[in-house]
Formats: sequence, C-alpha cells, structure tokens
Amino acid sequence: MGDMGDTTLDRRRFLETLGAAGGSAAVYAAATALGLVPKPAAAGPLDLKPVGGRRVAILGAGVAGLAAAYELGRAGYDCTVLEAAARPGGRNLTVRGGDVVDEIGARQVCAFDDHPDLYLNAGPARIPADHVHVLGYCRAFRVPLEIFVNENRNAWVQDDAAFDGQPVRSRQYRAGVRGFLAELLAKSVDPAALDAPLSAGDAERLVELFTVYGDLAADGRYRGSARAGYASGGVVSPGVTRRPASPLELLRSAHWREYMHWGEEAEQAAPMMQPVGGMDRIIDAFMARVGDRVALRSPVREIRLRGDGVDVVHGAPAGGVRTLAADYCLNSIPMHLAGRLDHNFPARYARALAAPPPGELFKIGFQMRRRFWEDERIYGGISWTNQDITQIWYPPHGIHGDKGIVVGAYAFDGDGAHLLTRLSAAERLETAIRQAEKVHPDYRGFVENGVSVAWARMPYLEGCPIRWTDALHAAHFETLQRPAGRHYLVGDQVSYLSGWQEGAVASAYHAIRDIDARERAG
Amino acid sequence: MGDMGDTTLDRRRFLETLGAAGGSAAVYAAATALGLVPKPAAAGPLDLKPVGGRRVAILGAGVAGLAAAYELGRAGYDCTVLEAAARPGGRNLTVRGGDVVDEIGARQVCAFDDHPDLYLNAGPARIPADHVHVLGYCRAFRVPLEIFVNENRNAWVQDDAAFDGQPVRSRQYRAGVRGFLAELLAKSVDPAALDAPLSAGDAERLVELFTVYGDLAADGRYRGSARAGYASGGVVSPGVTRRPASPLELLRSAHWREYMHWGEEAEQAAPMMQPVGGMDRIIDAFMARVGDRVALRSPVREIRLRGDGVDVVHGAPAGGVRTLAADYCLNSIPMHLAGRLDHNFPARYARALAAPPPGELFKIGFQMRRRFWEDERIYGGISWTNQDITQIWYPPHGIHGDKGIVVGAYAFDGDGAHLLTRLSAAERLETAIRQAEKVHPDYRGFVENGVSVAWARMPYLEGCPIRWTDALHAAHFETLQRPAGRHYLVGDQVSYLSGWQEGAVASAYHAIRDIDARERAG
Repeated sequence: MGDMGDTTLDRRRFLETLGAAGGSAAVYAAATALGLVPKPAAAGPLDLKPVGGRRVAILGAGVAGLAAAYELGRAGYDCTVLEAAARPGGRNLTVRGGDVVDEIGARQVCAFDDHPDLYLNAGPARIPADHVHVLGYCRAFRVPLEIFVNENRNAWVQDDAAFDGQPVRSRQYRAGVRGFLAELLAKSVDPAALDAPLSAGDAERLVELFTVYGDLAADGRYRGSARAGYASGGVVSPGVTRRPASPLELLRSAHWREYMHWGEEAEQAAPMMQPVGGMDRIIDAFMARVGDRVALRSPVREIRLRGDGVDVVHGAPAGGVRTLAADYCLNSIPMHLAGRLDHNFPARYARALAAPPPGELFKIGFQMRRRFWEDERIYGGISWTNQDITQIWYPPHGIHGDKGIVVGAYAFDGDGAHLLTRLSAAERLETAIRQAEKVHPDYRGFVENGVSVAWARMPYLEGCPIRWTDALHAAHFETLQRPAGRHYLVGDQVSYLSGWQEGAVASAYHAIRDIDARERAG
Repeated sequence: MGDMGDTTLDRRRFLETLGAAGGSAAVYAAATALGLVPKPAAAGPLDLKPVGGRRVAILGAGVAGLAAAYELGRAGYDCTVLEAAARPGGRNLTVRGGDVVDEIGARQVCAFDDHPDLYLNAGPARIPADHVHVLGYCRAFRVPLEIFVNENRNAWVQDDAAFDGQPVRSRQYRAGVRGFLAELLAKSVDPAALDAPLSAGDAERLVELFTVYGDLAADGRYRGSARAGYASGGVVSPGVTRRPASPLELLRSAHWREYMHWGEEAEQAAPMMQPVGGMDRIIDAFMARVGDRVALRSPVREIRLRGDGVDVVHGAPAGGVRTLAADYCLNSIPMHLAGRLDHNFPARYARALAAPPPGELFKIGFQMRRRFWEDERIYGGISWTNQDITQIWYPPHGIHGDKGIVVGAYAFDGDGAHLLTRLSAAERLETAIRQAEKVHPDYRGFVENGVSVAWARMPYLEGCPIRWTDALHAAHFETLQRPAGRHYLVGDQVSYLSGWQEGAVASAYHAIRDIDARERAG
C-alpha cells in the first residue's frame, strides 16, 4: 500500500505560483516519495532467549510492571513485582461501588450502585487503535473491547468568553469554523489569476474544494449549513438552517486552540476502544497470569546498584524490611518519587529523575439517576468548557439504561487541575456541579453521588503524568531511557506517550530487549 | 442553552473589512440572535384520542407500517398490516447464515457461520443520535444498542486518479487537506493589513487559528503532522512525520468532493448506534407487540378510494383475493410500485407517485476468516474507493473475535450501483473482491463466502431509496404528503430523510396526527 504520491517539478512550480497569488510566500509542495506504508509494529510476544536463574525485581504493578513480569516470566526469568499499594494496577484504576479511594487526606468510599455499567475509569479510559501493544494483550488475553466515543458533534462547547457564556453544539461550532475559513479562502484566493500550469480543471477543483469544505453558498459565502444542525424541521418539514456563528465570537472562544482538533490527533482519533466493564479488566487479565509474582503492600525504600545487579530494600506487608537481591531491576516508580528514595544512582541519572515535574490529572465520576444527556441527543463523547472541570464525558455503554456514570471533571493541566486537586472531596463535587450547570442547567438534580481522584494526592504516585517539555526532554530523556547499571527506569514516563498505557508497555519492552541482548551477549 | 452569540455593528463592519482584505467581497457576518436551543422533538407516544370501531389498512410491514400499527392500535384503531413478502421488516433486513435472499433472478442462500456477530444489515445499518423516533422505540422496547463507527482515521482512501491509485490512510489524507487549506490561508490573509476594529489580539488569534487548524510550522507552511500518522517512531523513539501529501494529488482525488465531509453532516456525524445483534432487532420488537395484526404474503392489488374510506384488494397466503374495507389507509408501498397498482387516485396524485425514480442501493457482505483489518489497526469504520464498490465497512462489534462480516460493497448511486445490480450473484462477489484488492491486497484470501442484496431487484421493493431532486420535490412532494381522500402515502419516501428509518416513522406520525385531527373534528 502506497504513501501519498509524487509531484512533478512543473506541478511544484505551479503550486508555488498558487501560493504566491494569495500572499508573500509560496505553497509548500515538496514532492513525496512513493513507498510502502510501514507495517505496524508487531504487538506479539517478544522473542527472548530463555534463561534460568535470573532474578528480576520489578518495581510497581502497573501495566509496565505486569507486562514485564509476564514477558520475562515466559522466558524463564524469576520475577518479583513489588507494589507499594494494597492493589495492583497503578494508575489503571477502575472505581466501583464500595471501593475506597485512598487519597492522601481525602479518603473516599465510592457510593455507586452495584451494576456492571457503573464505574469510573479514574486513570486510562480509552485505547487508541494504534496502541498495538495494549491491544495485543487485550486480544491475547481475550479482554472484551467495545467502541469508545471520543468526539460527539452533539456535545457542547462552553466558553465564558464567547457566545455570552452559553453552550453551543460542537457541530454548530465546527461548521462555523469551517464556514469561516472556507469563506476566507474563497474570497482571498483567486485561481483565475494564477499562471499555468494550473489547468482550468484544477482551478475549478480548488474553488469547489473551498465550497465543499465550508458548505458555502454559490456566491462563496457561508450562510449556515445543515452540518450545524437544523434550527427546526428536516424530517417531515423542510430543514431550517441556523444563522451562522459569528466569526469573531468563534475567534474569541478557546475551543479551536486545541481541543476542537483532538479528533485529528494521533492519540485521540476515532475510533478508540474501552474494555467492557472497566479498564482494569486488563489488570485482572495480567494478574490471572502473574499474580503469584506480585507482592502488594511492599513499598520500596532503597535501591542499591551493584556491579552485577541491583539490591532493592522494601517494606513487607507484615512489617519490617527485606532486601531483594536481583540481577536486573525494572523500575516503574514515578521518577520524582524514585529520585527521593535512598539510592546510589549516578549523579546525572539522579538529576534527570528529579527534573521533569509530575502533572495533576484529576477526575470526578458522578452517578446520575437518569441518563439526561441522551434526552439531549448525546450518546457518549465529551463536552468541553474552559472552566476548571475542562471536560464532561458521557458513557458510550449502557445506552438507554436507567443510570450512568458521567465523568464530571477531567482536568489535566494548569490552574483548573491544581485548584480541584486541593479541594476537599465534598468541595470538588460541589464545584464540578456548579460548573457543569453552565452546560447542563438541570445537572444538579440528576447527581446521586460522586467520587473524585486527584492523582497528585494518590499515595505512591503523587502526580500523573510526567510533564516533559522540549527542554527537559533534550536534557534528560536519553539519560533515563538508558539503564543505570542493571537498573532500568520504565513506564509511560520514559516514553513519548506520557500518560498512556502504550508508552508504559513499550518502555518495558524497550528495557526487556536490552536485558535480552545482554543475556545473549553474556 | 444558547445559540451562537450576537455581534455588534462595529464587529460586523470589521469583519467585512477582514474579508475584503483577502479578496473582492466581505466575510459574511450576520448577527445571530441569542435564543434558546430548540428542544429535540419528543419521540414519546403520540397523544391520540381513543377511538373504537375504526378500521385501518396499513400497507407494508416496514418500520413505518409497524410503528403506525403500534401507535394506532394503542389508541383503539383496528389495524391490519398487509405485507406482500414472506417476512416483515421491509428494507430493515438483517441477513444471517441460512437466510434466503430472494432477489428477482438472483436467489441466494447466505452461508455465514451461525454466530451472533456474523450478520449483514442489508438495509439500514446505523442510527444517528438525532433520530429521536427510532431511538425512542429502541429505548421503550429495550432494544440494546451499541456504538457504530462511521469514521475511522486509520481506514483507507483509494482513488485511481491520485497517488498512483495506492490507498492512503484517511488521517493522512485529511491532515493533508487541512494543511493545504491552512497554508493557503496563512499566505493569503494578512491580518496586520486590516483596519480597526481588529484588535492586535484578534489578529493574532486569526493567525493562530490558521496555524492550529492545519498544524502548520512556525513559518506558516505545512510540513507534515503527527495527525497524518507517523512514518515511524513515536512511542519509545521520536516520532518521524511523513512528508505532506501533494496538494495537487489531493485536488485530483475525489474524496474531498463529498465523502471526506460525511462526518460533518447531520445524518452521518459521530456517534451513531446499531442494535446489538442486527438492525432487525427493532422489527422483532415491533412484531412482539403487533405481530398479530400483520398478514404476510398478502400483496396489494388494488386501492379504491371511497368517500368515507378505502378498499384494499389483496392476495391471501392461501391464494385468492380479499378486500379489506378500511376507514383509513396508510400506504408505505414504494411509490413507483403503488402508482402501478389498480387504483382510482386523483390524476395529480397518480402523476406524483410515478415521478421520482427509485435508487439502486446495493450491498455485499463477506464473511472473513480473519479480522485482517484489525492487523491494519482498523477497528470499525469505512474505507472509501472511487471504484464501483464505493465503500468497505469493518464491523464495530466482535472486536478481536475470530471472524467478521465486512460490507464489501455499499454502492448507492450512479454507475457503480447500476453495474453491480445487474451482475449475477457470483459476478458481484468476484467484482467486489477484485476492486477491494486495490485497498487490501490480500483481501481475496480472507473471503469465506459472501451474499449480496441489490434493492432494485428485491421483490415488492424494486429500488431504494426514492431519489428526490429539487425539481421533483417542488413539483410533487406536497401532493404526496397530503392524503388522497383517506389514503395516506407514508414511509421514508415522503420525508426529508429518504432512505432512513427516522423518515419512515416520522411520516407515519405525520399521517397519524392528521387522522387523529379528523377523528377529533368528526
């Protein structure tokens, strides 16, 4: 299967002319080489050399640690997974009725009804189609998946700075932006004024593209579109289009700055998947296979590199301290915590661990007595607001059921997440309800109970995900991706997919391949 | 909840200036009135006056006829549904293993395995979130729904006229179009040259919008984007972007003319739904409630309007002819067939029935021995080709299962549908395989069996859907939407949603409300 095609030199020259006609510089039209589309990276089992008598200490029973224990165990490595918390999974946490959320200073007991549809995926909640490692395990372990809805044209966009703070349908917002941009193109670019080799056909196509892209009227103006949703009619009476959104109001809203385009992004594009019944079905599947290698309530206190291995000093559930003498250590402890342990890491490595800050990802799940969003013709997907709560998620499963869990806040950056994290559990719910009322005026009346998870206050994690900047990345990433002796930092924190399970598993594979190479060489 | 906000006169004048700077005419910026977003039309039960002793003949047991029988029956009307075929449902047809597709001259027996995931929805296959009548019945009848995938950024776009005929990923195609358009905007529109009242902030926002929309480089050029999918890396190594698609190749492809934008359209926007197990679960639910009113194998032969009713002459399963003397008749027989019956319709009504032509909607379902598309990171959604087959659908359900049914052709217009309809059953499958090989080179090897449905050759239907043009609509729609005496034409054919179940149900409601008004007046 081929990549995008090539262009001739003539065509390139033409396109430069085309670009120049509309402004000062030329349209970029570098020829693209024809070639095969790369096959996706295989998610299958690693091809490891079988070994015996090698002891591996794996720190953390999140997906990175569990995948490492599974893969290394199959090759004969003697793995022990040390997990500080009382449960496995790390940030892969599905909260159900009766579960305790053991936040530091904000212990909560989840009051959701006991029903298979009623859960909050407090950490990862959706799997992109390109996440071949995670999907590979779902396939191999027969974890049932269903489609997750990330984008919904009927969901709302609310911004205090635009449209008088009133929510507008995503479809109306998007059609408005497209109409605005296409109209600007139609008015600004005149194909007839362009030199050859723009054929008459190509010029016509260009104008047609503008028109179709924005659903413009024949005169090149955007006068509203069925794409924005009809104001009335359209079924047994003629559809009446809405007057278009004001371009200036659109410009002054924030949604187009980033979130409007998430569905175009690599990690957020449709379709995405979720395990039926909760994301922790993946953890359950791993635990069924390597649970006997996992020691819960075993927080690591000290990491001591040796020439031929790593000693890991850790607490034990019954109390006291033990030392695990390992040939290799795979460490998925969040780097800002790992760096604060007693250790003998090289100075450069220790500095790198301490450098990138952890994020403050925050979620609330509300049990709603009625699936009111379906009355608004919203089935799954996300409403966006520029208030602290940032997002409201509607469940894609349990359609037309009696109740549902709405993600009442998903804040992951900046002031909103910071503020919500610092509130008491009760204050968070009240704040989220108050803010959501700008999107759904009757919201409060549907709330039965709620539970929040502020990852910056979760013990042994104290933040999520690691926030790499370009500068931090340039300074420290390579240092951390390489082993320090026989100690490997793993987890999404040492991947290009910070905050994603795929990064966690791939980082473990990266380390495992290095260990395998050492064993083959040794 | 509010509509898009207002603009001041100053703002409008400014935007006109803005538009003029880039071309000859002004940006359309009509102020939009603030107002409440209309509540969706209620899908609940009709509020009919209870009547007794009123006999209603309902012609056709598709969703229009069944919904009419259900609603009128609840109000006390004595309904008889005459269905010509041996099964109810009309074009709501789910084909499973062992089912006979009784096409005229192309009888087929479906050879799918007996498995709940293995079916072809040969007619309607997806329900938009705005189709409140259909969704209302799914909710009331507890028909389980799941999310359907209409758009998939990882699916393919294949066009013989571009990219050397090689398929490209939808995400690459889309990112290329956006990058191309945004770069044209960045080069053609100079906010600094615009007059007040464009504030510096607004000018900056405009440039930022172009940049973000197309994921342009800092210099305003499109040099590729992660949105197009990485050529390599992005997980444990840096992501390498692809070189951008050639704008001229994009222009010469056909996908942007219509299908690229379907996800923006009212009827095709995400998310859509499907009943778990097949679209005919809706028919099953209706039949459980009104099946005793449905007479199968009872083709209508003659419709005779009387002053106070309608006589319907029809065949009976055991042979012979019967007359149903009804007070009202709701007729969902396709209009091009209804017009050919023996009847005494007014001349204008008869002309209208004969005027709009039926379409040639065509589908193939292939049972695939392996879900090979998931190996290509495609989970549900549609690949597009400008060959006859037009579309290839991947099932959104049964993820990671052993087999799956792929819709190997969904042609609904023009030469492709016409050609495929006229082929033998075997020729259709071979043609579809050969064409699909341009998208999936190994396709043939995965096919276990296939079944096709050409609606233009299905008995008692002979086409789908009715193809209204603006001219035909202006000339005939109102005539047909009004009753002829006590005869009401119903079905999607007399709605603005030709080919959609929602149009069928809404048209029945439209007729029922008129009958109710007559009964209340009478």
